[in-house]
Amino acid sequence: MTTAKLPPILVVTTGGTIDKQYFDALSEYQIAESMIEKLLETARVAHPFRIVELMRKDSLELTDEDRTLIAATIANAPERHVVLTHGTDTMTETARALADIEGKTVVLCGALAPARFAESDAAFNLGMAFATCQSAGPGVWITMSGSVFDGLKVRKDRAAGKFLPL
Amino acid sequence: MTTAKLPPILVVTTGGTIDKQYFDALSEYQIAESMIEKLLETARVAHPFRIVELMRKDSLELTDEDRTLIAATIANAPERHVVLTHGTDTMTETARALADIEGKTVVLCGALAPARFAESDAAFNLGMAFATCQSAGPGVWITMSGSVFDGLKVRKDRAAGKFLPL
Amino acid sequence: MTTAKLPPILVVTTGGTIDKQYFDALSEYQIAESMIEKLLETARVAHPFRIVELMRKDSLELTDEDRTLIAATIANAPERHVVLTHGTDTMTETARALADIEGKTVVLCGALAPARFAESDAAFNLGMAFATCQSAGPGVWITMSGSVFDGLKVRKDRAAGKFLPL
Amino acid sequence: MTTAKLPPILVVTTGGTIDKQYFDALSEYQIAESMIEKLLETARVAHPFRIVELMRKDSLELTDEDRTLIAATIANAPERHVVLTHGTDTMTETARALADIEGKTVVLCGALAPARFAESDAAFNLGMAFATCQSAGPGVWITMSGSVFDGLKVRKDRAAGKFLPL
Repeated sequence: MTTAKLPPILVVTTGGTIDKQYFDALSEYQIAESMIEKLLETARVAHPFRIVELMRKDSLELTDEDRTLIAATIANAPERHVVLTHGTDTMTETARALADIEGKTVVLCGALAPARFAESDAAFNLGMAFATCQSAGPGVWITMSGSVFDGLKVRKDRAAGKFLPL
Repeated sequence: MTTAKLPPILVVTTGGTIDKQYFDALSEYQIAESMIEKLLETARVAHPFRIVELMRKDSLELTDEDRTLIAATIANAPERHVVLTHGTDTMTETARALADIEGKTVVLCGALAPARFAESDAAFNLGMAFATCQSAGPGVWITMSGSVFDGLKVRKDRAAGKFLPL
Repeated sequence: MTTAKLPPILVVTTGGTIDKQYFDALSEYQIAESMIEKLLETARVAHPFRIVELMRKDSLELTDEDRTLIAATIANAPERHVVLTHGTDTMTETARALADIEGKTVVLCGALAPARFAESDAAFNLGMAFATCQSAGPGVWITMSGSVFDGLKVRKDRAAGKFLPL
Repeated sequence: MTTAKLPPILVVTTGGTIDKQYFDALSEYQIAESMIEKLLETARVAHPFRIVELMRKDSLELTDEDRTLIAATIANAPERHVVLTHGTDTMTETARALADIEGKTVVLCGALAPARFAESDAAFNLGMAFATCQSAGPGVWITMSGSVFDGLKVRKDRAAGKFLPL
């Protein structure tokens, strides 16, 4: 058996802190080229996957139209296993917008510190999402703060900097 | 609901490349203080866990007695969710030695590059193991190369530097 | 001879991009606890030094009073070898404000990417400053973009992201 | 004035810990493709330089012939400012072999931890060497442990992991 037999994973990126870069000429941070492909390369991932860089937004700026587009992209894709990278502030709202997708395991993750930082939760969280979309049943999940959460039963405690079960 | 309601995870470390450090005074690399706690801190893990640093060995040096000790440590622990960090060369052999443990989800992982490297698969693989021990059923699993493998149906291709399904 | 015979170095920190941290709860970057001590520890510096964390400002916010304070701190210190970490946008303006200090070698440096990034110019630039304050004569110097510049004959090309000789 | 007016720097690499990589298939570390170009890119060096990757050796394996080749390479190069990356164990021996080169500023540096580590002294030491070859007079210098040493008046204390003045 070869890796061709492993179920392919769709990775959809939407922006968020995980992809923030610092632009000295502007003295500010903005979402830049996605770091997801680099993280998967560093992790030496041999599992088949496909990346769709759908948008580059802070999750506080995501609109209903954006969420409709995200849901349609996932629903119409051939892959049954999906990872969605996303800003953390409205991650649970997007999870609810994906609740009606049937027959697919969709896992949302992001990071509290940009992947470009030497010390970031990005690689760990992405690893959790990659594993959960393979080992959990159909539905929407969130992998943050070291836990696999039901995507409809979790909240972010912004002051504490972590996700907690509802 | 608080994190106290989340199922606690036992993390057992045994050494391997993931924990290798460079010692200039010896001009050689050796397994050193485990990096697992540092990796979980960087990942901002809020999920309850307990680390047992059981041994510091290259996996090629592990004996049958070592594997018996690993199995007993896991079988007798109160936690039902277990992550085992391990050198990659004999990881599948240890997986077989744990196959008879009942009612527990045990996930083995390691790294092809030391966690102390700037570019290592350590954090991603550990994230996969943390997620799999929460979302997969009882049994023995291996999370390497981006895949969640049945621990009894996987092999390492040493020359290619990756794990493949049997 | 021991390290006690090496000339002690004063390191004054004022903030700037080099010390920027990301604060998820605010969704913004701010200057935080200085990374200079961590950088010197990672560099295994055995040379005697003393750090004075004087202010935490973006260099665009520095006032004439701030520059007077910086100059007085350096002029009155017992050390003859001084490194000054500083935001890059007004680094040359501060260099001019230090031009009248006599008998001391003062070297300004900063970074275009925060020291907390995995890929930053911070350690290299700080290393250049540490060396220049030991090997160059009295005066004001700037070590950025791989060059040792006369502090009065250099400008920052903000769009190009580098320092150039005047 | 442009960067074309800055004095060009020759960087000669010879191997050493700074360039060590981990090879999982061999379970050992070996000197690999030099990291020096990557370090200079990360440091955003705009100063003109040229890299000659002369050899890939642990400095304990360097022979008299190797040192003759290093000296000839430097003596015959058009650049007057030279950085030499080198293993630390016999760095002072090579410094003595270069003492007769006239009219050039030659700076040796290396690292106690490989440049591929997240926490390494490589970038800082290389920055020190880059600055010293511009700001110090002709002769042979060593930049390690945060100090600019006269290359003929320094020793490595291997157990302590640092360089000290003689």
